[in-house]
Amino acid sequence: MAADEVRCALLGAGTVGTQVARLLGEHRADLAARAGAPLRLVSVLVTDRERPRPHLAAALAGLAGTPAAEGAIVTDRPEDVWRSAPDVVIEVMGGIEPARTLLLAAMAQGAAVVTANKALLAADGATLHAAAAAAGVDLYFEASVAGAIPLLRPLRESLAGDRVRRVMGIVNGTTNYILTRMTQGGLDFATALAAAQRLGYAEADPSADVDGLDAAAKAAILAQLAFHTRVTLADVSVVGITGVTATDIANARDLGLVVKLLAIAERVGGDEEEQDGVIVRVHPTLLPASHPLANVHDAFNAVFIEAEAAGDLMFYGRGAGGAPTASAVLGDIVAVARNRVRGTTGPGESTYADLPVLPIDRARTRYQLALDVLDRPGVLAAVAAVFAAHGVSIEVVRQDALPEPGPAVAEARLIVRTHTARESALAATVAELAGLPTVDRVVSVMRVAGGAEHR
Amino acid sequence: MAADEVRCALLGAGTVGTQVARLLGEHRADLAARAGAPLRLVSVLVTDRERPRPHLAAALAGLAGTPAAEGAIVTDRPEDVWRSAPDVVIEVMGGIEPARTLLLAAMAQGAAVVTANKALLAADGATLHAAAAAAGVDLYFEASVAGAIPLLRPLRESLAGDRVRRVMGIVNGTTNYILTRMTQGGLDFATALAAAQRLGYAEADPSADVDGLDAAAKAAILAQLAFHTRVTLADVSVVGITGVTATDIANARDLGLVVKLLAIAERVGGDEEEQDGVIVRVHPTLLPASHPLANVHDAFNAVFIEAEAAGDLMFYGRGAGGAPTASAVLGDIVAVARNRVRGTTGPGESTYADLPVLPIDRARTRYQLALDVLDRPGVLAAVAAVFAAHGVSIEVVRQDALPEPGPAVAEARLIVRTHTARESALAATVAELAGLPTVDRVVSVMRVAGGAEHR
Repeated sequence: MAADEVRCALLGAGTVGTQVARLLGEHRADLAARAGAPLRLVSVLVTDRERPRPHLAAALAGLAGTPAAEGAIVTDRPEDVWRSAPDVVIEVMGGIEPARTLLLAAMAQGAAVVTANKALLAADGATLHAAAAAAGVDLYFEASVAGAIPLLRPLRESLAGDRVRRVMGIVNGTTNYILTRMTQGGLDFATALAAAQRLGYAEADPSADVDGLDAAAKAAILAQLAFHTRVTLADVSVVGITGVTATDIANARDLGLVVKLLAIAERVGGDEEEQDGVIVRVHPTLLPASHPLANVHDAFNAVFIEAEAAGDLMFYGRGAGGAPTASAVLGDIVAVARNRVRGTTGPGESTYADLPVLPIDRARTRYQLALDVLDRPGVLAAVAAVFAAHGVSIEVVRQDALPEPGPAVAEARLIVRTHTARESALAATVAELAGLPTVDRVVSVMRVAGGAEHR
Repeated sequence: MAADEVRCALLGAGTVGTQVARLLGEHRADLAARAGAPLRLVSVLVTDRERPRPHLAAALAGLAGTPAAEGAIVTDRPEDVWRSAPDVVIEVMGGIEPARTLLLAAMAQGAAVVTANKALLAADGATLHAAAAAAGVDLYFEASVAGAIPLLRPLRESLAGDRVRRVMGIVNGTTNYILTRMTQGGLDFATALAAAQRLGYAEADPSADVDGLDAAAKAAILAQLAFHTRVTLADVSVVGITGVTATDIANARDLGLVVKLLAIAERVGGDEEEQDGVIVRVHPTLLPASHPLANVHDAFNAVFIEAEAAGDLMFYGRGAGGAPTASAVLGDIVAVARNRVRGTTGPGESTYADLPVLPIDRARTRYQLALDVLDRPGVLAAVAAVFAAHGVSIEVVRQDALPEPGPAVAEARLIVRTHTARESALAATVAELAGLPTVDRVVSVMRVAGGAEHR
């Protein structure tokens, strides 16, 4: 690289890319002071060079005095990018391909990479990390999880002398918005989803969000950062929010709980009986109303970290949007540029712990079940006996007669919250409960998080 | 330094120092993997070598196989520390002297410094930073603000491509515990303080906490990190919580607000009319109950950041205690050790912005006033006219008759919340109100923070 500047190529000029270009112009002097050399935008790769892009043009105009200002650096041909000799390649196009091929080519040429691409990192981060290590270049990806919220440096650097036990995150703004509307407005899922779509918080096809897949990709990246172990999307156990009903939320509220879609990565075992490993899962979760995550509303994201020495930490902020995501990208660009100016690199992928990823039936958590049961003597005793037979200890029981118009036979709604139990024991309990003649149906089973200090 | 290890000297072996020694032993393998070389504790400086220190001895025993394990490295003579040839000097003794002299000596010898010393950094950080720059060594101080909460890297690195507008922090656990008890238990200040003292949250002489001086030192450090400008303790405008009454808290609750002691650092001006600069202040502040900082209870700390591109961010966690503070110290040790192994240094002091620190009367905020007024016609009009005369716009007014037993003359309690106003205009308003014949007394004046989105 030229010692007097850091040459930056931008792959993708959508909402985030345009904001990155804008900030590179507006904050030019600050960025140069922090990086130790001016950052120069030398190419912008787009899919179709002919499409009018007024916002990008306006952003580039802020780079007055450079070829960028005239838009001469915008191209739809990767070879133009390589010809521009970038020191840093900034990928904000998203998707697996062609992003992967482009980033591998960039690193092979010795360029550092900054990417916001959670899908690629969760699906095939190992290939990217290996390429970065082989080329001796930086690979930074702060913007890939929870948008503007700093997590990469806190997890990889600030907590480098500690041990993380568990990470729990609200990492998908769409589902948090829907659950917030269901909780605060008493809406059902379909109505809340429609509201989210009207406001642009949910896509026309909302499945990646509401089925939990977006959160699962982020869970994999968080788990890798927290536990220094490779985790991919395929390792994550996922349940979305499409099955969450207004009744679930009302039942939760009656017991001082709220429903959140959490991405949870935790370290388990390590004693003589249990295999050491990590479990990574995404599912609707009940949280005490006083838990810090319970107060994260609307499209905000937050990540709650339980560490051995540090105790509880939480990081809160905007998880999506052009400017917030661009803020995280810019922080990475400065770090990578500064490293290049100094001829060094930052901490790379950390996988030395190399823990196995364990199946969710190894997880231990509390559960809350709602059962519709026949309203007659002895039913509660029969239900309690099933829990006891599987070694699942009951913490709270609440029984209410079901309101009219009810079923032909008098029934009651039974809410049971358990103490911590093994997932496999709970599954066996539920299967047996469903077969009891006195149980009409198992209405819902939900996991409960948040320690005793938040009850 | 020896290329095959990083030699660490520990100055101070109190609560934090003992935990640092413990973690250096327990996490030895992880730390070596993350730093790129083993960390070896080569000396521990204490004030009195003869005093029994069972916890330190137990921690050092965890460093089995090194001279540290036998306690042979514990000394009360600084020359023994220098003789141990440390690469990194870890200062957790606190106070201005002898910490400053020792750290300057360490850097002059080429050792990097990790310190948790907020008092020293706030009083004379410039001297330390200059010494680090002159010696070309790292000076890291994550643990000096808000204990375990990562702030140094988020503010200095993650937000390096953004612009921070305002930082608001609950950075003193003692006062947050007292205010939480006053709010949740209806206690008065003296009773809540006594409870905090019983639990060890407050010192026998609580003045550094309750008078806001501890928070002010942290505010100075936060302001420097956020605004790349030098700020010292003397620049901070400070009001503590000794004047906060149970009535203030009840009045706040009636209007959906809570009282928190906030450290606020903000950037002001920059347009043609106003001088660009920063204002740094600590005072009891009213926050909407839905604001994320309003839900930070007990001895927890949190720092809320408003940035141009990132939007609102919050970082939450334990602000004090041996293990949480040691976690932050260890993160710094790993970073500094890793830099030394690679022959580089991290980002140093950033003061390029060089903004002036402006007096608090340049601040613009909302205010809430409580006034006891005579309960007769025309009083409200007279009060409102005073606000109008000083250009202070009223947002909310609430008037209640004072309960019996009241004063001899019928009086009412008037609560007035203003729109954003200049501090100097509000001061003039209050002075004139106090002189009105119909105003018995100005019961309280409190600043209000938190934007419209949290109302």
